[in-house]
Amino acid sequence: MFAPVYFDWNATTPLDPVVREAMLPWLGARFGNPSSRHEYGRQARAAIDEARARVAAAVGAHPTEVLFTSGGTEANNLFIKGAAAARKPGVIAISAIEHPCVREPARQLSRSGWQLREIGVNAQGVVSSADWEAAVMEKPALASVMLANNETGALQDVAQFAQQARAKGVWLHTDAVQALGKVEVDFRRLGVHGLTISSHKVGGPLGAGALVVDKRVELAPLIAGGGQERGLRSGTENVAAIVGFGVACERAAARQGEEAKRLSVLRDRLVELLGSCGARVFSAQAARLPNTVFFAMERIDGETLVAKLDRAGFACASGSACSSASPEPSHTLLAMGVDEETARGAVRLSLGRDSTEDEVARFGEAFARLTRELRSLTALAV
Amino acid sequence: MFAPVYFDWNATTPLDPVVREAMLPWLGARFGNPSSRHEYGRQARAAIDEARARVAAAVGAHPTEVLFTSGGTEANNLFIKGAAAARKPGVIAISAIEHPCVREPARQLSRSGWQLREIGVNAQGVVSSADWEAAVMEKPALASVMLANNETGALQDVAQFAQQARAKGVWLHTDAVQALGKVEVDFRRLGVHGLTISSHKVGGPLGAGALVVDKRVELAPLIAGGGQERGLRSGTENVAAIVGFGVACERAAARQGEEAKRLSVLRDRLVELLGSCGARVFSAQAARLPNTVFFAMERIDGETLVAKLDRAGFACASGSACSSASPEPSHTLLAMGVDEETARGAVRLSLGRDSTEDEVARFGEAFARLTRELRSLTALAV
Repeated sequence: MFAPVYFDWNATTPLDPVVREAMLPWLGARFGNPSSRHEYGRQARAAIDEARARVAAAVGAHPTEVLFTSGGTEANNLFIKGAAAARKPGVIAISAIEHPCVREPARQLSRSGWQLREIGVNAQGVVSSADWEAAVMEKPALASVMLANNETGALQDVAQFAQQARAKGVWLHTDAVQALGKVEVDFRRLGVHGLTISSHKVGGPLGAGALVVDKRVELAPLIAGGGQERGLRSGTENVAAIVGFGVACERAAARQGEEAKRLSVLRDRLVELLGSCGARVFSAQAARLPNTVFFAMERIDGETLVAKLDRAGFACASGSACSSASPEPSHTLLAMGVDEETARGAVRLSLGRDSTEDEVARFGEAFARLTRELRSLTALAV
Repeated sequence: MFAPVYFDWNATTPLDPVVREAMLPWLGARFGNPSSRHEYGRQARAAIDEARARVAAAVGAHPTEVLFTSGGTEANNLFIKGAAAARKPGVIAISAIEHPCVREPARQLSRSGWQLREIGVNAQGVVSSADWEAAVMEKPALASVMLANNETGALQDVAQFAQQARAKGVWLHTDAVQALGKVEVDFRRLGVHGLTISSHKVGGPLGAGALVVDKRVELAPLIAGGGQERGLRSGTENVAAIVGFGVACERAAARQGEEAKRLSVLRDRLVELLGSCGARVFSAQAARLPNTVFFAMERIDGETLVAKLDRAGFACASGSACSSASPEPSHTLLAMGVDEETARGAVRLSLGRDSTEDEVARFGEAFARLTRELRSLTALAV
């Protein structure tokens, strides 16, 4: 079977074979409902406890601070809406480059008495400290700033923001979905009130994520019912997915340092290849994820380029998968002051544990050829 | 490996091996994010479309009426809170025997301007038509009555209720989680506005469920973000689980008639065996699920009995798994007028596709022996 080169690891990752092995028994003879008190149920409960300890250890948290959800999107919604339900309506401050699953719940709040305050970023896609400080002076009840942007990979100074947030009684949440496994993620060191991670971005299965949350944060459940997850997330736990998530987190944390070194070499090589073809790489001057390159080519439409790369055997993203259902320009790039046409045509390459030097080299050749072809077509059309 | 006899199919079911086979490629080489536009993404999108068609066909709905969620609990919450958000606060009517994942969201509404109206049941656990009609006269905006009760198995006349609901502009939802695969479930014939089903109750994996919903029902998303599921349920779709859910629904619907016949024979044999030991079987006079027996033994504590059965190699439930974290008496039995002591000591046996005559016979012997032992202990203690 022909398998295209996968350069879209920020969208989702192939399941780590070790994770898969750990999951299989829970898709077989060990099928109990963790709330059942018989043998099948007790096995499942023990597996969840073990997974919770693994996830907690991977992000420097206590197991009792880990709430399992169906994924990162749900965890972000749970913090934002769940914490809002426990506070009086006030200001919620989020950065201008948050993922839609932070932005949309914040917008929903703004239709029910809350005031939404966006915090600007500079041309490199880094959240402005000055604007963050200005926002904090407005005493928001809640704030959310992502640890690493999903499109540009730009890292944000969340630890610094958290110090200022705590001083002012602001509950600060960070979406660390793209950061986990690529840079260090330490709940205690960051000092945030809430932190979101997702299984399928780190070699785990779809269907599991977690909100790591300071116990002083009051939350109302989004999904109420049988009382699972301390009453904060009801519904029978997805045992196999949670077991896989635990193993994936453990492995991602263990490999993070080495992988970051290895991937940043490949990423820098990509930047070089793209540069030699005239690409404009975004957030190139910012501290950013070791695996991500977000770029645009003048006079070449990103969609067309991605479709050509797809046919040539390279799976890349035009914008982020999470919003690629809509042909909107990247809101991250717009927030950075990039013009709309360029923001609409951007392409993202993201690498992962199976990415190799050879894949990068082959990509470089194909890319040079395709852009030459597209440019000659454009030249003819003019 | 010693495998206890599993008599707790209403709590969760072992994964059907055919379903498992269908899922495995999606935990392997086919790992794409369905929102990605490259080859990996397109494969995943096509698989979800196919699963949606299977689920729709199994419940007599159109594929565009199927919204995938992480499970039944989320689907129930989505209907109740999502529809409430689109209507002016008014009355929400639910039966007195709903699952906590209907009851709790309804209670949450009652803390934000809604009035919660409970509809009573008779001594057999069947929702009272008279009380339903009285409730409808109060013009509730929303109502929810389950198709089959998870504890007693009692079936409710939801099709009749739906007719009356439509005449009065009430949006009626039914939790069909326990009904699917055991009795006929037909969205169109029932005539409800919303219907919830769950994958892991019908031989599918944990992590998938669906809200089947009439398109005239306005819903606000519980989980907002990237805009998946027509903007009503964001978050990367759990592809493997959804694929498994589709196959499981198809098989459950295909086998339903035959299985109902086979299981009701086993169930009747269980009722006979229990009766000969002096058990009181609940809802015995009601039309009910072919696989469920809910009973209590005078002067024998249900918890103790279930623990003894567990050690003897039979996995049964004391109350429903969904609420077995709490030692509360069954609220279903209390609603039926059963006294608190009896309601606290009830035991549920639920059968499924692997259940056999031999298992039932072995259970009968073990049960007779254990109750004799427990009775002699009680006699000594008196």
